[in-house]
Amino acid sequence: MTTPLQGTSLIGFSRGGKTKSLGPATNPASGETFGIEYFGASEAEVEQAARLAGEAFPVYSALPGSDRAGFLRRIADEIEAAVERIAELGPLETGLPEARMRGETGRTTGQLRMFADLIEEGSWVDARIDHAQPERQPLPKPDLRSMKRPLGPVAVFCASNFPLAFSVAGGDTASALAAGCPVIAKAHSSHPGIAEIVGECVVRAARDCGMPEGVFSLLHGGGRDVGMALVGHPVIQAVGFTGSRSGGTALMEAAAKRPQPIPVHAEMSAVNPVVLLPAALDERGEAIADGLFGSLTLGAGQFCTNPGLVFLPDGHGEAFLAKLSELVAAGSSAVMLNAGICDAFKQATAAIAAIDEVKTLAAAPDEAGRCTPSLFSVSLADFVANPALHAEMFGPATLVVRGKTEEFAEVIAGLEGQLVGTIHATDAELPEHAGLVAALEKRVGRLVLNGFPTGVEVCPSMVHGGPWPSTSDGRSTSVGTLAIDRFCRQVAWQGFPAAALPEELRDDNPRGIMRLVDGVHTR
Amino acid sequence: MTTPLQGTSLIGFSRGGKTKSLGPATNPASGETFGIEYFGASEAEVEQAARLAGEAFPVYSALPGSDRAGFLRRIADEIEAAVERIAELGPLETGLPEARMRGETGRTTGQLRMFADLIEEGSWVDARIDHAQPERQPLPKPDLRSMKRPLGPVAVFCASNFPLAFSVAGGDTASALAAGCPVIAKAHSSHPGIAEIVGECVVRAARDCGMPEGVFSLLHGGGRDVGMALVGHPVIQAVGFTGSRSGGTALMEAAAKRPQPIPVHAEMSAVNPVVLLPAALDERGEAIADGLFGSLTLGAGQFCTNPGLVFLPDGHGEAFLAKLSELVAAGSSAVMLNAGICDAFKQATAAIAAIDEVKTLAAAPDEAGRCTPSLFSVSLADFVANPALHAEMFGPATLVVRGKTEEFAEVIAGLEGQLVGTIHATDAELPEHAGLVAALEKRVGRLVLNGFPTGVEVCPSMVHGGPWPSTSDGRSTSVGTLAIDRFCRQVAWQGFPAAALPEELRDDNPRGIMRLVDGVHTR
Repeated sequence: MTTPLQGTSLIGFSRGGKTKSLGPATNPASGETFGIEYFGASEAEVEQAARLAGEAFPVYSALPGSDRAGFLRRIADEIEAAVERIAELGPLETGLPEARMRGETGRTTGQLRMFADLIEEGSWVDARIDHAQPERQPLPKPDLRSMKRPLGPVAVFCASNFPLAFSVAGGDTASALAAGCPVIAKAHSSHPGIAEIVGECVVRAARDCGMPEGVFSLLHGGGRDVGMALVGHPVIQAVGFTGSRSGGTALMEAAAKRPQPIPVHAEMSAVNPVVLLPAALDERGEAIADGLFGSLTLGAGQFCTNPGLVFLPDGHGEAFLAKLSELVAAGSSAVMLNAGICDAFKQATAAIAAIDEVKTLAAAPDEAGRCTPSLFSVSLADFVANPALHAEMFGPATLVVRGKTEEFAEVIAGLEGQLVGTIHATDAELPEHAGLVAALEKRVGRLVLNGFPTGVEVCPSMVHGGPWPSTSDGRSTSVGTLAIDRFCRQVAWQGFPAAALPEELRDDNPRGIMRLVDGVHTR
Repeated sequence: MTTPLQGTSLIGFSRGGKTKSLGPATNPASGETFGIEYFGASEAEVEQAARLAGEAFPVYSALPGSDRAGFLRRIADEIEAAVERIAELGPLETGLPEARMRGETGRTTGQLRMFADLIEEGSWVDARIDHAQPERQPLPKPDLRSMKRPLGPVAVFCASNFPLAFSVAGGDTASALAAGCPVIAKAHSSHPGIAEIVGECVVRAARDCGMPEGVFSLLHGGGRDVGMALVGHPVIQAVGFTGSRSGGTALMEAAAKRPQPIPVHAEMSAVNPVVLLPAALDERGEAIADGLFGSLTLGAGQFCTNPGLVFLPDGHGEAFLAKLSELVAAGSSAVMLNAGICDAFKQATAAIAAIDEVKTLAAAPDEAGRCTPSLFSVSLADFVANPALHAEMFGPATLVVRGKTEEFAEVIAGLEGQLVGTIHATDAELPEHAGLVAALEKRVGRLVLNGFPTGVEVCPSMVHGGPWPSTSDGRSTSVGTLAIDRFCRQVAWQGFPAAALPEELRDDNPRGIMRLVDGVHTR
């Protein structure tokens, strides 16, 4: 059922108009535009999508988890059926290789099915039952039960660096739809065609599964108008975003200024420190350099979990540094997601290279319109003294900070919040540095031992979030099953008969879920 | 070990200075000041309390749950030992009766022990374990484990209307300390002596249990300076507040403007609609009036859950209205918590009485410096047309809105967020109004059937929170065990050996807690 791309927004089950031209997509490899023309959503179309989402919410949120699970699985099936189109168009829009498109499609469908399984099983709602004690003195205890319920329509902003897994039907959309929230997705201008292909998959799935119109819309938009209109709309009850700190903070400010402030889950920026301890370096410095180089250059360094900062102890790691310098110097150039990101990377690396205290250890030859890996170093004292050195260079560049191991913990305690903190240590030296590990734990969402920060496993225990400014709200994760909690709130029922309660809260537990009954976990 | 009140702040284990006089406390019954002079914390003292809290955090958060539980229980014991002093001084500072002081002391110690039990048992950390699959294709799966960890030092603002249960060692403090967060409490100017008595209990418990200095401080402060300095301090990582909408939104704005924004949990205002359905009114209108009057006037109407709005169907409820009017007209006057609250109540009731479309159904005779119950009514159409009628009158006043039952759901859907929504219905008529219940569910944190909104049970399933503006963040509760989640974030460990993991995440499960292991709930 392949239809040619139309370039318009998807407003519920209808198509948007062709009044606001955004032009065609740009191929970042050539800098040239190609293909059809895209059109931004008008104010009336934003309003229409919001109205439909508002109307869909009571219907959609009342469906049993199994119905929503069927919808999510159908979306996954539709996307899987579109993989050839994605694999063909994706590289042209993003500069990412075809294999990445296929792999990321698999991750996206995997996420949708993971959330389908989660809500079909049902225990995620954190059902709690406290039975009445009518004889209790001095006051009777009422019957009280509570569980998670969806917040309302959610605005999802597609990420430039994850055209599938954190875009139209990515992690934010999957978790919001799983929770029972309608979604209005805002396409990213870097990959409007992929957005339309995936958006049509979601709409087809919604129609086929009998979901209410408005459970999903997809808006194209130039500039920030469409996004800001969405975040300011009274129907929208939460926001999911993956992107730059400036973009995320702008959304946070807009959300905080609404007559009704709403939560923004923005996953923004991080340098993800890697701490190399002496014995590990002595034992396997070259292997660490190999792994770090792979992590640094994966996807042209365009991951939120990219290792942008390395703590290296004085007197150790010469083999590591020699190897890493060699790999970086021989590194290949790569197309980045768009010209803006490439320009920002070149400016960031040029700025850091121009700082007197910073040494450029290695850099592959510069190439117009492409990024090349870069390796810098600075002393611990100079790093502490210069806040500019703490900023993210989004791309394949990293800064090695050299100093005394015993001073690392204090410097780490002063870092901004990070998504990931990595440590390389031998079994023997890890316990000696418990204070360093504890300091790192306070600054990150995920600690990695003897591995590398990129590669975010999608599973129940994953935390892809971290203290400000790596995310807007470090209490949440955007990857893994816990991501669903962002779009829910606990609601309590007091004194209701079984027939008027959600199934999850009835004494006979018809869903067979894990619950907390009179303080005891039980099925 | 009773020491006379000193009137100064508690900065860690030391006392603050006597430079900023705030004068003595005021007895709201007489309007006269009495007792010792109190002194606000200086800027240097705020800084010192923050520094100590920052230093205490890594030590305190590393303690096992059983140690923190012992500390909480000792606080409860100390407060229990101080109950006679509280019962003597409390009524003078708050106008609330001695029995309420004793009852609220019991609730406070009960909350502390509930959180002690929660963290000693340990399952609250939501431990998750996903074992490695080194052979998985195309990529090996790493070993990944996660659990809740504390955010950092928390600022707690004492509530005027709960001098114990939501003040110095109340629900916010108990849940933050339970989570592993040091607390800096800001005393309420209405009851500085109770604050000092309870603050000393916490400090004694901290010393006796060997807790690090700075795990708790108590600051007095005039105006908003001390509070704003606290919320703006980089050490503070979250805020707990119960009070007015203006106070709560001011804290939210300050927290959002920090270089590092932090979460504010403000429990602010609500009118807590009560919906009376026809058959229930016909069956037991007078009994409902009795119960509603009791709820409305409990604690001089100074509860966040006070029923300030009643939906009454046309053609029903004459007996209810007659009885409620009779009770209100004969109602006694009462001392309110302070002159500001009493003035605001009188202004709010005068303003509503002056609206042409509003009828004053009953009001006990006015009395200078005291509140009296008031009962107003308005048509559904006029209620919808006049937003001023949706605002809270903090005190014993309620507005009856009369209209067609079938129009209630739509009007309720347009209400602001509320803490509680109450319905009175017969078993037979409840299912006929499922749409109304669903609409109410979307606007409240807790639904009550055939009961009354005041009386907030402290238990695992309680939700005392609700959509904006009843709270700043409707995803949380300030009462019950779930309140601990406000001060935590999930942290993941990837690839760590058992010896370097928290006990909660070790394969042998030494704490015996409920966990999610490879997707399955198990102990």
